[in-house]
Amino acid sequence: MKKLRMATPGPTQVPNEILLAGAQEMIHHRSDLMKKIMEEINCELPKIFGTSQDVYILLSSGTGAMEAAIVNSFNPGEKVLVVSNGYFGERFVDISKMLGLEVITVSSAWGTSVNVDEVKDAYYNHPDIKGVLVVYSETSTGAINNVKEIGTFFSKTDVLVVVDAISGLISHDLPMDDWKLDIVLGASHKGFMMPPGLAFVAISQKAWIKLEKVDPRTYYFSFKRYKKFYPMAPSSPGVSLLLSLKKSLEILNKEGLSECTSRHKKIAHATQSALEALGFPLFVKQPHLKSNTVTAAFAPIGLDASLLLKKLNQNYGLTVTGGQGEFKGKMIRVGHIGAVDEIDLFGIFGALEMALNEMDYNFELGSSSRAINKTIDRGVIPYA
Amino acid sequence: MKKLRMATPGPTQVPNEILLAGAQEMIHHRSDLMKKIMEEINCELPKIFGTSQDVYILLSSGTGAMEAAIVNSFNPGEKVLVVSNGYFGERFVDISKMLGLEVITVSSAWGTSVNVDEVKDAYYNHPDIKGVLVVYSETSTGAINNVKEIGTFFSKTDVLVVVDAISGLISHDLPMDDWKLDIVLGASHKGFMMPPGLAFVAISQKAWIKLEKVDPRTYYFSFKRYKKFYPMAPSSPGVSLLLSLKKSLEILNKEGLSECTSRHKKIAHATQSALEALGFPLFVKQPHLKSNTVTAAFAPIGLDASLLLKKLNQNYGLTVTGGQGEFKGKMIRVGHIGAVDEIDLFGIFGALEMALNEMDYNFELGSSSRAINKTIDRGVIPYA
Repeated sequence: MKKLRMATPGPTQVPNEILLAGAQEMIHHRSDLMKKIMEEINCELPKIFGTSQDVYILLSSGTGAMEAAIVNSFNPGEKVLVVSNGYFGERFVDISKMLGLEVITVSSAWGTSVNVDEVKDAYYNHPDIKGVLVVYSETSTGAINNVKEIGTFFSKTDVLVVVDAISGLISHDLPMDDWKLDIVLGASHKGFMMPPGLAFVAISQKAWIKLEKVDPRTYYFSFKRYKKFYPMAPSSPGVSLLLSLKKSLEILNKEGLSECTSRHKKIAHATQSALEALGFPLFVKQPHLKSNTVTAAFAPIGLDASLLLKKLNQNYGLTVTGGQGEFKGKMIRVGHIGAVDEIDLFGIFGALEMALNEMDYNFELGSSSRAINKTIDRGVIPYA
Repeated sequence: MKKLRMATPGPTQVPNEILLAGAQEMIHHRSDLMKKIMEEINCELPKIFGTSQDVYILLSSGTGAMEAAIVNSFNPGEKVLVVSNGYFGERFVDISKMLGLEVITVSSAWGTSVNVDEVKDAYYNHPDIKGVLVVYSETSTGAINNVKEIGTFFSKTDVLVVVDAISGLISHDLPMDDWKLDIVLGASHKGFMMPPGLAFVAISQKAWIKLEKVDPRTYYFSFKRYKKFYPMAPSSPGVSLLLSLKKSLEILNKEGLSECTSRHKKIAHATQSALEALGFPLFVKQPHLKSNTVTAAFAPIGLDASLLLKKLNQNYGLTVTGGQGEFKGKMIRVGHIGAVDEIDLFGIFGALEMALNEMDYNFELGSSSRAINKTIDRGVIPYA
């Protein structure tokens, strides 16, 4: 028997309850029963975003939601500022350019967080920008951006703040209304512990005023159509995924959102400690910038990261992802978002130690397990 | 106990095998296991389309695939001809206009099929059209269009023929390569007997030549990105739905595509006979234009169609859809696409007879059952 496990930043493992909820008998998407289910979902979902606004559910990946946010919010030729410190920040740039926007960027090195003062300076130099696009938790590096400060700053302007919170939602605090964020994006296969397939978009009143002035360039992703059909979907929705979502929201509700976020913090910290115990230098240095969703770490000198990931997969059935972009082959990224607890971590690091031992890497057996145990015992270290 | 049933043209009922396949443990979308599954799917899927080309799998509803086909194939300002005889033909017009295309239409009344000679005349009058957009099986009316003749005619031109075969695929013959169709669209919640969520796009060599000359206006739906990442998905795919798709293709393979299409013909014919036996005038008159996916029929004079549908739903747990557009409230549409057999029909019409009886409608009890029985016994009447 070879059991398959994942320690990936999405798709991540899905609890059986959620999988089986999606395997219920099909419901017609225009039926009264579907309407009832949508109303229940639409009552709970905004709480996750910390908003009093409606949240729309797209049938797409997170990338679709990124495109939808941009194409609905900005006309071609308008200028946006992308805050970029990784792969998904670069995706914001690519999509914006493809859609004919003028793009300026404020970047920082991968593994760091963008300096908010530089974002403010960019605004002073380009007061004609219409939007700021920022990734909250950068899955490619495990660094978070200070979207709270960005949101608060731009709330005094007419600039929209669009936040890719695809992995950052649930795993981190994100009270959209309090932080004055305008468009917040989420996706099902991250903190919601679901299969991929649904994306979420929460839209502020301020954003709606701007949206109304944008020429329609998409039918499928049109937020105006979503609004018109709300709480139902404008075209065939992902019925099975919506049934899973209902169960996901029940589970999140039972745990409590803040408890869930605390668990993510605790598990992230334990992962960081365990990797350091094994001699893996963490990619993100500053404690308060570390994402609770994924921990990226360099392979120790002399250790082949790609071979390690291959061994983990082939010999122990464990999928761990590697570096993206220029860090391909140089690092490992251990995902710990969603339905992950410390017992999972013991298994993940047990497999990692076995693979390292097989590769004749010099380390103390059991040291990662000890680090996890000690960190969990100490409780959560409050980061932010 | 009140069992819920659907006789709808999509979403339709999903076999348990397919539901449960989608409830398997999550797989990472960039893993070797996922690659193996994608290769298996990509080996079988083109057979359904009757093509030697690759078929791309989008994470979207059918509407998303319609938009994707148009935005990838045509530049703004280019002229397309929409062949329209129903709700989804009109959707092609709406999407094309929104995307900045010049649209000319050749229409026919709802419930009829568009005359191909008029399509040819439109081409002679507008030889600068770059594409013809046509719905194969119009779900709003139950009429099919002669895409074979349209495909063959335009194969001698540089005009692309884009076919919405979302409900027409599997339920009708559609050998894409033989009929010289350029872009053929499908969706999971129709003949594939799956939950909604996946859409399919098959693209001819001729279409690729045109696609290469179109300026990119979408990232999420970019066919070039799909081609680049094939057989994997360019962004997080609907993993659970892909696992269901693999099972769906196994079931279709076991039944045999032509046997499956024949079954759809047979069931459609039995439905038509049963409705006629109950005194419901069929909306589509000509036998060779009737869709195998859905049968629309007017309520007999004096019978309230909306009340009938409400009674079916509330008292018998059966969802049947009503008319769309101007026919809302005037007709019923009985769906019979996907995993539907004659035994299902007996149940559907049994419920219909109970509801009609309740409404004091004057008819012979059991007459629809007899009609189904006789039609099935006689075997399939070959339509086309």
